[in-house]
Amino acid sequence: MDKIVALAKRRGFFYPGSDLYGGLANTYDYGPMGVELLRNIKNLWWLTFVTKRADMVGLDASIISHHRIWEASGHVASFADAMVDCKNCRLRIRADHLIEDWIEKNKDARKKAHISEKLTKEELDKAFEIGKVEGWSVEKYDEFILLFNVQCPNCAEHDWTKVRKFNQLFPVQLGLVEGEGGAGYLRGETAQGMFVNFQNVVNSTRVRLPFGIAQIGKSFRNEITPGNSIFRTIEFEQGEIEYFFDPNKTNWEEKFEEWKKIMWHFVTKKLGIKEENLRWRPHTDEERSFYSKRTEDLEYKFPFGIKELWGLAYRTNYDLTQHQEFSKKDLSITDPQTNEKILPHVIEPAVGINRLVLAVLVDAYKEEDPSTGSGQARVVLSLPAHLAPVKVAVFPLLANKPELTEKAKEVLAMLQNDINGKVQWDDRGNIGKRYLAQDEVGTPFCVTIDFNSLEDKAVTVRDRDTAKQERVKIEELVGYINERLK
Amino acid sequence: MDKIVALAKRRGFFYPGSDLYGGLANTYDYGPMGVELLRNIKNLWWLTFVTKRADMVGLDASIISHHRIWEASGHVASFADAMVDCKNCRLRIRADHLIEDWIEKNKDARKKAHISEKLTKEELDKAFEIGKVEGWSVEKYDEFILLFNVQCPNCAEHDWTKVRKFNQLFPVQLGLVEGEGGAGYLRGETAQGMFVNFQNVVNSTRVRLPFGIAQIGKSFRNEITPGNSIFRTIEFEQGEIEYFFDPNKTNWEEKFEEWKKIMWHFVTKKLGIKEENLRWRPHTDEERSFYSKRTEDLEYKFPFGIKELWGLAYRTNYDLTQHQEFSKKDLSITDPQTNEKILPHVIEPAVGINRLVLAVLVDAYKEEDPSTGSGQARVVLSLPAHLAPVKVAVFPLLANKPELTEKAKEVLAMLQNDINGKVQWDDRGNIGKRYLAQDEVGTPFCVTIDFNSLEDKAVTVRDRDTAKQERVKIEELVGYINERLK
Repeated sequence: MDKIVALAKRRGFFYPGSDLYGGLANTYDYGPMGVELLRNIKNLWWLTFVTKRADMVGLDASIISHHRIWEASGHVASFADAMVDCKNCRLRIRADHLIEDWIEKNKDARKKAHISEKLTKEELDKAFEIGKVEGWSVEKYDEFILLFNVQCPNCAEHDWTKVRKFNQLFPVQLGLVEGEGGAGYLRGETAQGMFVNFQNVVNSTRVRLPFGIAQIGKSFRNEITPGNSIFRTIEFEQGEIEYFFDPNKTNWEEKFEEWKKIMWHFVTKKLGIKEENLRWRPHTDEERSFYSKRTEDLEYKFPFGIKELWGLAYRTNYDLTQHQEFSKKDLSITDPQTNEKILPHVIEPAVGINRLVLAVLVDAYKEEDPSTGSGQARVVLSLPAHLAPVKVAVFPLLANKPELTEKAKEVLAMLQNDINGKVQWDDRGNIGKRYLAQDEVGTPFCVTIDFNSLEDKAVTVRDRDTAKQERVKIEELVGYINERLK
Repeated sequence: MDKIVALAKRRGFFYPGSDLYGGLANTYDYGPMGVELLRNIKNLWWLTFVTKRADMVGLDASIISHHRIWEASGHVASFADAMVDCKNCRLRIRADHLIEDWIEKNKDARKKAHISEKLTKEELDKAFEIGKVEGWSVEKYDEFILLFNVQCPNCAEHDWTKVRKFNQLFPVQLGLVEGEGGAGYLRGETAQGMFVNFQNVVNSTRVRLPFGIAQIGKSFRNEITPGNSIFRTIEFEQGEIEYFFDPNKTNWEEKFEEWKKIMWHFVTKKLGIKEENLRWRPHTDEERSFYSKRTEDLEYKFPFGIKELWGLAYRTNYDLTQHQEFSKKDLSITDPQTNEKILPHVIEPAVGINRLVLAVLVDAYKEEDPSTGSGQARVVLSLPAHLAPVKVAVFPLLANKPELTEKAKEVLAMLQNDINGKVQWDDRGNIGKRYLAQDEVGTPFCVTIDFNSLEDKAVTVRDRDTAKQERVKIEELVGYINERLK
């Protein structure tokens, strides 16, 4: 993981946020390579789930939103982390993370018999079996910490405060003078945008059930994170879909399975993530929201553990019911055949786009030494070509020869015109260093213009994965690269 | 303008934000059509300024950012609206807007002689001549309101408070308990992200001067707006470029003119906005920031007045100098030839993407009656095809004939596969109503599958602009549409 983070900073994928001023915890800025990778993934998601489907429409709701939305959704009341502080070193940590990490390192601890009023034997057995305690009550966390004498991962002391909950939503004071104007929140998820605009979408488009509303955008949660780079940040990019259907006409279990296949296909085939690093995990009863009939997470084997990548939940019509109640407006729609009123149910596939970025980077990262791969010592990002930030890099062999630069600029202009994606120029340092830089950002092809090019009208094309070089006529270059980028 | 806003809500371009809960002033949610138009414009901007240029790189910085950034930038101290309140009806309005609107309606008022200590004759002459008073001091606004006895546009009273300034940045409390953690701000512009990451970008990529850093993203300003729909909102999408150069090697005046041409070309050729609705306006000395050597606005003739679309400013090296001072870090780079240290200067083209959306909608909006255009009574959005939210709509002539539906679904699947963009399905109501709906969202082509289609393997293609219909073989349909979408 440290290597990925170092690569990310060294090659412009992402930097700590507000770096120049010492950083702002749990924020990141995407650099020139990261923003292209992020955009490629976002655009692929949109293309797959909105553009190419007649049963889906897009939405882009405001981040700043009315406080009533978040009261109706339950976020204001319950959307809170259970936190605990170390009185010794002042570390503040999420209670579930503290306990889960402790369980992982102390699997044997369960062997000792423990008697507790607040935690049953079954609860403890399960916690040790699956390593998850998310969704427990504050009292149960307290009891566990006491029972097993959990120590601080930072200072090794055993001096904890009581576990407490904090609201994760960021309040925003609208209007210009303190206390005036309405109170809003930065949205804690994009999903609510789809629910509160459900009637607007139905009334302004030609959609009919079943149909989905999709949105990509930033959400904000004021939470403590364990610092796994861009995995969990206070500001993050979500890709959420609310797929609405009439439960009398659509079998939710079939739809659920259909979405599982679609998500698996996207991650393995379109993002190129290896199947062996992925798994489905159904939520435990404690984790699952009370209104959800089924929730499963598509998980990825990150270097810091197997973690959620993409959640899939059947939420019934809980959200529309809540908003109907809070807004006192009828959100049902009328079945054109039966004239019956329906408050549709939803299945929600919700992904953290930044987690996809991180999973793609981790999955593509390779270190080669002379005995492996290309036979060279190098770091290479084997990204699928359609995700690579740069498709082709163009090098004049030497920087200080105007005739080479001129010819290379011609080739650059030609490729920029006819290649679908970014073409980069580099005339700094020697060719070896330029290859190294491009390998580390996953550029599929490097094109070098040398003195022979002026004679034979051909260039050297070097392949990222094999590190092999081939001589290609300039007039055939666009066709050659486009064919291999497919 | 009312017609555009009504169309926007009726056809799913944008809705008032938090609509279900009575709305949240100056926020908007983009619906299914709006989000596609917004995305098409954003992607075209990125393609033009980042993907297709070897001298530009992208960035995507965090919205929540360190308070020191905004102290260094000057936003915390000076980024404030001068506001004035009507004591009678409690209207709060920007002083410059109040005065500018008043001048427009009272051009003759200047004929009367006025003697003022705080406003010179020259200042008053100019204000009436150009109709702009932005950048005046609070005292000057007060004086003008008093001198001309400006009345409240809402209640017609003359009972104003003193003019006062308010910070437009939204503060964000980080950390989980009030008063703990760092104070951040929601960014007031994307530009600072480029300045604070300048060294990160230089160190992690292969860029050399001159080069630009580009970013698209949301910015936030807690300001009073005159309510011109999406023209000015508290949350808005910016497209900003900081183009860095060495002033000893690059002539800024030439670069400035070059950018003016590039921006004009983008707006007229790529967005298809009519030249007669556009103009360049150099900033007055009062409007221009003290560090800027030249600033010009590309303006568009909106229904509510000629307003800024895209600003172009030569900012010298003011921003890097400020951040160098506040961060105590050296932000200069070394010239590879002379080994001299340079703190680059910048030219900044900064556009409000939502304004581009609005300008494109206004420019494309047409009402036809039987004596004009297609000879029909209709509203049509004549969007350039590459900006249209939907490229093709597919209709089975009747909804209740399975054989038509089946054939139409085949055509839909074929087009979804081979057309670059969204293809929509509609089987509701009669064909006339479906055409009407597609005209209003600017869909270039409608394809109808009728009973003859089952025999002759052909469909009716109807053109948005001419409303003419043509019979096209299904096997030639993709080629026909792709050719005409170019």
